[in-house]
Amino acid sequence: MSAELDCLFAPHRVAVVGAGTKPTNLGHMVVRNLLESNFQGVVYPINPKHESIGGVPAFPSVLETPESADMAILCVPAAGVLGVVQQCAEAGIKGIVCLAAGFREVGPEGRAMEDKVVAVCRKNGMRLLGPNCLGLQVPERRLNATFAAHTPKPGNIALVSQSGALTAALIEWAIGKGIGFSKIATLGNAADVELAAMLDYLADDDDTHAAVVYAESISNAQAFTAAAKKFTARKPLIVYKAGRFAASAKAAVSHTGAMAGADSVYNAAFERVGVTRVLRISDLYHTIELLAADRPARKPTLAVVTNAGGPGVMSVDALAERGGRLAEVSETTLDALNEVLPTAWSHANPIDVLGDAPAKRYEAAISAAVGEADADGILVILTPQAMTDIIGSADAVIAAAATTTKPVLAVWMGGGAENEKATAKLAAAGIPTFEFPENAVDAFMNEVASQDAVDAAAASIPAPADDFTPDREKAAQLIASVPETGLLPETESKELFDAYGIPVALPRLATSADQAAKLADEMGYPVVAKIASPDITHKTDVGGVVVGPKNAEEVRAAYEQIVANATAAKPDARIEGVVIEQMVSAGNAELILGSTRDASFGQTIMVAAGGTSAEILKDSALQLAPVDAGLARRMVESLRIWPLIKGYRGAEGADVDALVKVITRFSTLVAEHPEITETEMNPLTVSPSGAIALDARAVIDRDALANPPAKYSHLGILPA
Amino acid sequence: MSAELDCLFAPHRVAVVGAGTKPTNLGHMVVRNLLESNFQGVVYPINPKHESIGGVPAFPSVLETPESADMAILCVPAAGVLGVVQQCAEAGIKGIVCLAAGFREVGPEGRAMEDKVVAVCRKNGMRLLGPNCLGLQVPERRLNATFAAHTPKPGNIALVSQSGALTAALIEWAIGKGIGFSKIATLGNAADVELAAMLDYLADDDDTHAAVVYAESISNAQAFTAAAKKFTARKPLIVYKAGRFAASAKAAVSHTGAMAGADSVYNAAFERVGVTRVLRISDLYHTIELLAADRPARKPTLAVVTNAGGPGVMSVDALAERGGRLAEVSETTLDALNEVLPTAWSHANPIDVLGDAPAKRYEAAISAAVGEADADGILVILTPQAMTDIIGSADAVIAAAATTTKPVLAVWMGGGAENEKATAKLAAAGIPTFEFPENAVDAFMNEVASQDAVDAAAASIPAPADDFTPDREKAAQLIASVPETGLLPETESKELFDAYGIPVALPRLATSADQAAKLADEMGYPVVAKIASPDITHKTDVGGVVVGPKNAEEVRAAYEQIVANATAAKPDARIEGVVIEQMVSAGNAELILGSTRDASFGQTIMVAAGGTSAEILKDSALQLAPVDAGLARRMVESLRIWPLIKGYRGAEGADVDALVKVITRFSTLVAEHPEITETEMNPLTVSPSGAIALDARAVIDRDALANPPAKYSHLGILPA
Repeated sequence: MSAELDCLFAPHRVAVVGAGTKPTNLGHMVVRNLLESNFQGVVYPINPKHESIGGVPAFPSVLETPESADMAILCVPAAGVLGVVQQCAEAGIKGIVCLAAGFREVGPEGRAMEDKVVAVCRKNGMRLLGPNCLGLQVPERRLNATFAAHTPKPGNIALVSQSGALTAALIEWAIGKGIGFSKIATLGNAADVELAAMLDYLADDDDTHAAVVYAESISNAQAFTAAAKKFTARKPLIVYKAGRFAASAKAAVSHTGAMAGADSVYNAAFERVGVTRVLRISDLYHTIELLAADRPARKPTLAVVTNAGGPGVMSVDALAERGGRLAEVSETTLDALNEVLPTAWSHANPIDVLGDAPAKRYEAAISAAVGEADADGILVILTPQAMTDIIGSADAVIAAAATTTKPVLAVWMGGGAENEKATAKLAAAGIPTFEFPENAVDAFMNEVASQDAVDAAAASIPAPADDFTPDREKAAQLIASVPETGLLPETESKELFDAYGIPVALPRLATSADQAAKLADEMGYPVVAKIASPDITHKTDVGGVVVGPKNAEEVRAAYEQIVANATAAKPDARIEGVVIEQMVSAGNAELILGSTRDASFGQTIMVAAGGTSAEILKDSALQLAPVDAGLARRMVESLRIWPLIKGYRGAEGADVDALVKVITRFSTLVAEHPEITETEMNPLTVSPSGAIALDARAVIDRDALANPPAKYSHLGILPA
Repeated sequence: MSAELDCLFAPHRVAVVGAGTKPTNLGHMVVRNLLESNFQGVVYPINPKHESIGGVPAFPSVLETPESADMAILCVPAAGVLGVVQQCAEAGIKGIVCLAAGFREVGPEGRAMEDKVVAVCRKNGMRLLGPNCLGLQVPERRLNATFAAHTPKPGNIALVSQSGALTAALIEWAIGKGIGFSKIATLGNAADVELAAMLDYLADDDDTHAAVVYAESISNAQAFTAAAKKFTARKPLIVYKAGRFAASAKAAVSHTGAMAGADSVYNAAFERVGVTRVLRISDLYHTIELLAADRPARKPTLAVVTNAGGPGVMSVDALAERGGRLAEVSETTLDALNEVLPTAWSHANPIDVLGDAPAKRYEAAISAAVGEADADGILVILTPQAMTDIIGSADAVIAAAATTTKPVLAVWMGGGAENEKATAKLAAAGIPTFEFPENAVDAFMNEVASQDAVDAAAASIPAPADDFTPDREKAAQLIASVPETGLLPETESKELFDAYGIPVALPRLATSADQAAKLADEMGYPVVAKIASPDITHKTDVGGVVVGPKNAEEVRAAYEQIVANATAAKPDARIEGVVIEQMVSAGNAELILGSTRDASFGQTIMVAAGGTSAEILKDSALQLAPVDAGLARRMVESLRIWPLIKGYRGAEGADVDALVKVITRFSTLVAEHPEITETEMNPLTVSPSGAIALDARAVIDRDALANPPAKYSHLGILPA
């Protein structure tokens, strides 16, 4: 168990440096927050000028406390931080929470100061949260190390946020809703402790059953993917990433670069490591509410119990939109419902208990729905009607929920005092409540997706073996041969791909019939054979071309015949041999396979529909490199033109296994060569006889040749 | 001004039939609701057994009231309704609100009873709301003719709903938010008064500045489109239509049928008549909140004032997602902001007034933002931070909003008592408040879209004239010639399109050189000329084919030569003449142009990308027929393959005007012939030289030939 951040999350003695006597003083507020949250450890206000802060004995410095503190919360202005951190190091304090702003975010001088502070921490084995953050809270320990006045109750969800303001707002909301948290941490500038370190720590934290993250940017992408992968192998991880549309399209040499926006790289990374991304902040809130109930759902199947048709239809729309479905109601469940409901009930899911439903009817219907094996969650909707027992029906939900471990979600529509009372009762009983059916469905589908990701991580399938060994030496030579423009010529680019076992339409010279047959064997049939001679221009005129040999024997015969014809026609011509070229048919589809190096996440690969309309249709799939066969196949299957590749309307399907091999080998090539900034095969033709690149280009970062950047081995599936 | 529904919305004397003495009796509740809402007219409880209901003098029947009632609210069970309606007719009552269920929705018997009730109403010039509804409310008149206990305050928004339960919930919510309504009506079974009649009435209602509709199905589509069009020519109309995914794909003969789902017909209809559709019920609520402020916005440009970066980014994401944008901040506004904000402010929109912003700073920043000409709305975001003046900042918003007619939207994030107080204050001052920035942005964008629709309706552009006159007689003959299968053969289908001026690749027989030249002139060049003779099978062998004549002269020469060749080769052959066919090149794109007859909305037309991958790409645009040139052009421009049609990467563009003519003429054909159930041109090739159908099919409803259904003339743009 990684306990590296215990110095922050589990301190016994906490020093508050810069605690003043005025109630508006930041340090004063922090001392008060610690005491008011009823912290069970020891609080040392640090102030050289005062004997006490708000009645609490104060000490002149962290070096003069009765016992050495475990953690220090720095409430001094930026200029004083470095000195205090040095004192903390001397005092043996391991955890630092720095609230002050005025560092990296204000410019180069601030950045230099921040770097110095981090250097002191690193040297002394200290961990630093912030600077420029709200601090952290551990409700279970009654530790409120923030300047936010209140703390939610203890719970199972961890919140990690890059926005202090948003966190303060979310805390207030959670308190109102009765939602608990295991840990709350704001990262601020994340000078030392980054999102990755947090996730790594929380993955091992038994109190944390799920985490929600508010992120604006992810700096150390390699560490993030590793930590997120570790986390999602154990529990759900939900991320809201702001700034989806901020990135403007980069000028790019290839289609690949033009088609892949920065945000799609985040999507690829999140998908890769099992992160469930939500696109609206309201969705994050709703999902927190369901996660807080700690009743995991795995199938996107909902039973809906409602006293009105309209809201039932809404939930069906929302389910369909998100790819979920209504649970199928078995005969047994139908019988059970018929027994407890009036004959006019809907006789289907949504289970309409009718407008005059009393609380007892709700309870009976929910109990029957809970028993339905196909339902992984129960959504109960109430609208206030003439006869409606608003409070009693809430009690009925609470009673029925107690009989199951499935999640039960409640939507009490409308408002007013009765409704608020009912909602509060439900919330107090741990039943998540939502304003609209669609919110409940969103939360449910996010929960299912996040549990899915955990299950998928647990059931990792070994990739089918590809016993091809790249010719790495040749590849390195080709890359090193790049001219000053950084643009590798077509032939060299093709040879580079060829070195990694990717079929390319590369004319090859044979100097004997046997060699010709061998080359043709490697390329695949049919082929074209042409005389190679600097003295023969019009090859056809001398009988120097044979189109379409279909096997080795025919190639040998063609070789002999071509050489004989040419020699007969032009006895003086220098004959170098015969060039063998693969004959490529149109195939099922033309694809583009390319890569771009992302500044954060490293090599990404993209497969896309090619042809004239490539940029118009934008039919593409992006992944971090490298990918295994399963991922490569998923990329291809996700294309809209997948039916064409698979074989559409009786047409023979392309050799998908061959295509998958091309993708995995290509991804290995770029993953092993971070100095490649962009590559593209356009087109890559796929047909029943295989996949072959007809054109190739590669752009090399010549600076990186001398000083190669780190290789990103996402998921550790880089072939040996 | 249409006052037809005044009998329902503006009654002076209201009879409540079936009012009992028990407080739980439906009629009793309605009497109490009328009195408690402080209705200024006269309430007559009707009960033959009691002298009074809750102290209010009661009367034995509607025929025995002191004065004749204007409206009767029927609270009797279904079985008694017909008798009461007959009495009402006798009493001269013009408005009936029927709350009872047990009619059409329970089966054939109920339907028969409902039909009888409607017949009595129609015969006596009475209008009926319901049955099976919640009733109606007119807050301005203090008229609560529902069994919902409360009434929102008077306002400018009308609500029309097909769900009583949802309406009851929405009323409670609106009261809590302080949102007012002009009229609230629930349609129930809509046996007489349908959505169309409501919209028609509300279009003329000066108290109504906008309407929101909750619909589950739209029965009388023709009347709906006419009424909605009338409404949106004057004010915004927002519709939530439930059941988006309910319709399963119909088995369909053509691509058109397979690609156009039922919900896309609703989309086409809504777009056509200027309805702004919202897809989530929460979105409807949020939009109501903004509409209630009655400050129309026309540009999707927002100035965002915030005390934290994160929520600002969220609003930018939401704006980008919806196609809106941040207002550009002019130098003048920048100067104004620089004057009132600390130097560390964001110096851009979102205007970050920083975490320590006091109320005064908010007010100053909002005032500057209000002055920015490019901003059509101001979104103010507050997160609770250490120094934040939650209430004072709300006051600052209220003060600044008073200086402008632009909409000001407030998002006070978090929660807690202070926040609730601030939100209540804002709501009381008519400032719409939202939980999250994205909700505010959604509402703003919906408002802009709905105002846009009104403006577009006001500025209707006359369609370019198409002076072509269809050969209607020929078309009717062709349609009548359909075999029993209902499938018109290819040649007849082509001739049908040809009769409406649509270029088709139709081989035509010429019996003279001059006629051949004339036909070729009509078709366009180049052409192919082929001998027509029942005795000549292998036309090429006898010199009977000339490919590619490019003008009339060449066609004449080809004619003479072909006939001469054939006669020379086969002197006995009967020569009928020469068949002229257009030579069609691949062109810019292959399209599919088709129609399907929708059960509700009548003829719909679809233009789609064709070719092998048509069904895979699902690149299509749907419209109600007929369309004018502007609409036809918009359909084509909305296709993803539009760049290919327009001319991609330097390629010559297709003749878009010719394509537009094909679409308008085609739409006229199907609009004029409701007996056509499906048609399709596949492919319709478009090129720089025009658009031409290479294949054609049409399916005819033979039953409708004898007994034609109504022609739907959506928008009255059916050519004369």
